[in-house]
Amino acid sequence: MDNASLEQYHKEREEGNELILKYAGTSMKRLMNLDVMAYKDGALDGKTKELLGLVASTVLRCDDCISYHTVQCHELGVNAEEYEEAMTIAYIVGGSIVVPHLRRAFARWEQLDAAKDA
Amino acid sequence: MDNASLEQYHKEREEGNELILKYAGTSMKRLMNLDVMAYKDGALDGKTKELLGLVASTVLRCDDCISYHTVQCHELGVNAEEYEEAMTIAYIVGGSIVVPHLRRAFARWEQLDAAKDA
Amino acid sequence: MDNASLEQYHKEREEGNELILKYAGTSMKRLMNLDVMAYKDGALDGKTKELLGLVASTVLRCDDCISYHTVQCHELGVNAEEYEEAMTIAYIVGGSIVVPHLRRAFARWEQLDAAKDA
Amino acid sequence: MDNASLEQYHKEREEGNELILKYAGTSMKRLMNLDVMAYKDGALDGKTKELLGLVASTVLRCDDCISYHTVQCHELGVNAEEYEEAMTIAYIVGGSIVVPHLRRAFARWEQLDAAKDA
Amino acid sequence: MDNASLEQYHKEREEGNELILKYAGTSMKRLMNLDVMAYKDGALDGKTKELLGLVASTVLRCDDCISYHTVQCHELGVNAEEYEEAMTIAYIVGGSIVVPHLRRAFARWEQLDAAKDA
Amino acid sequence: MDNASLEQYHKEREEGNELILKYAGTSMKRLMNLDVMAYKDGALDGKTKELLGLVASTVLRCDDCISYHTVQCHELGVNAEEYEEAMTIAYIVGGSIVVPHLRRAFARWEQLDAAKDA
Repeated sequence: MDNASLEQYHKEREEGNELILKYAGTSMKRLMNLDVMAYKDGALDGKTKELLGLVASTVLRCDDCISYHTVQCHELGVNAEEYEEAMTIAYIVGGSIVVPHLRRAFARWEQLDAAKDA
Repeated sequence: MDNASLEQYHKEREEGNELILKYAGTSMKRLMNLDVMAYKDGALDGKTKELLGLVASTVLRCDDCISYHTVQCHELGVNAEEYEEAMTIAYIVGGSIVVPHLRRAFARWEQLDAAKDA
Repeated sequence: MDNASLEQYHKEREEGNELILKYAGTSMKRLMNLDVMAYKDGALDGKTKELLGLVASTVLRCDDCISYHTVQCHELGVNAEEYEEAMTIAYIVGGSIVVPHLRRAFARWEQLDAAKDA
Repeated sequence: MDNASLEQYHKEREEGNELILKYAGTSMKRLMNLDVMAYKDGALDGKTKELLGLVASTVLRCDDCISYHTVQCHELGVNAEEYEEAMTIAYIVGGSIVVPHLRRAFARWEQLDAAKDA
Repeated sequence: MDNASLEQYHKEREEGNELILKYAGTSMKRLMNLDVMAYKDGALDGKTKELLGLVASTVLRCDDCISYHTVQCHELGVNAEEYEEAMTIAYIVGGSIVVPHLRRAFARWEQLDAAKDA
Repeated sequence: MDNASLEQYHKEREEGNELILKYAGTSMKRLMNLDVMAYKDGALDGKTKELLGLVASTVLRCDDCISYHTVQCHELGVNAEEYEEAMTIAYIVGGSIVVPHLRRAFARWEQLDAAKDA
């Protein structure tokens, strides 16, 4: 996993979402919009919400979703300690079956740190 | 779901944990301890961690776990708006399959509010 | 499971949904609406969509959701053979872990037949 | 959970299976048969297979299935230490989300011990 | 995902199934057969059954299974609107965690359309 | 899947675990240790425990975890018939949604046999 793959992740995600929207009817489009809205600042701030999305994605074991929320957390200023503690809760709740996803999640996190320092 | 069932929830949980500990070997006991430790204040505060546990439990659809974290959130000062926003993320990520659990979760929340006002 | 419990199922579902709507913000309300809309006649008719909802609920193992779609299927004229074949697909895909839910699903189906004949 | 509920568990399971067979077509009946056959002595003995079924049921979090395999394990001579070690693996792999099921599983185990001693 | 990968998908699936059959005992072979039989025309037609398999596979989030049922649906004359409506139900029931699978599913659908037009 | 990929599997797993440990706090490190300890000989022998881990990983559908326990089972002397019977239970309990993982699991098994004979 290097910076190239970070770009590739963004490109594939964007292209995939465009493909969904090409086929999507009204309901599917509304679901896509609600998905974006749910993470905006509200009674809980956006950072907390991204951590909630991260942990939900990790216990449900979806690498694409974990990558998305890892990127969002990193952009919103979550630090490495906070990220690790959220992932510890995911590990406690979800069990060792999530460990392969933790490997890839921390690799993504390192990649984001490297991109920021570049 | 009334105040009696809130007491019953606590009683059954406590008795059940004692029963596990009666049989538990070293590894199972350590897991039980780590489970408690994971929600203590750290880089993330306890309140945020309980919200993480709540959302993880909701997308994994475990009523007992949702009840536990609902009680903890309520005690740590999570308000109704924050609770609803966390649950909206659980609903968005986990889909309508979580709705029956939301019904029971908000019933528990009401029960906790009623107990506080009593 | 008798006719009383069929009434109870409807009552609890209705009260639970009212409770959710009491707390729900805009996003949660929209999700509740989209959930209803998704099963309306369209390119696929409502009956087929209810069967899709039934099988999705069965492989995800949610009794409340299975009950809901069983009632809807029964009302829309799904017959016992069609219901059984849909459930066979759920059993094939989801494995024997769904069998306890099949027991309760067919009990619900019998109850609906009995209520119709009454 | 007392001995009455052990009898009730057997009665409900039996009645439920009869209900499934009342509706079942050929494929569903064959699946029911294969489910029984899979746990017979073979290259692996029946006891080991019941432990496999127990752990699979626990990480998938199905109380009815856990009860079934707990009864089978107990009958085939699994002892408390073996049962606990199998459940520790389920807990490690599946995470704390399985704990409420462990509470009920050990209560079932105690019930079986009490019935044997009676 | 291009036509090459559609061929590759078929090749890998076929080789994988042959490998399973090389090791499979009687029970596993019967399960493989029942899996094929469950989707044949019956009280429900094959097209409806493939849609049921598609939605079950999507809420359980298995890309290989989604690809299989997408190919079957396309061959049996499911049109793009029907496919989208079935996937909307999968999205509603299963939540945003299925979105990465929707991206790959619609890419597979486009690929099948392109192969047909070629 | 050839011997190169077996080496690659080990390399990626090792590097991934080192990455987790680089970030891990006390709780996460303890969880990693407990995960290793749970499979040691005890009241149940290590071989039985690896089969339990294999079946748990298969019904939860995690390829990395299946690979890990397949390697462990092979090293501890599980033979092809025993491996197939354990996987049949995973297939029965978990349904056809696990079949794509069975394809990859038996390919890994063949690879391990080939490496041993080399």
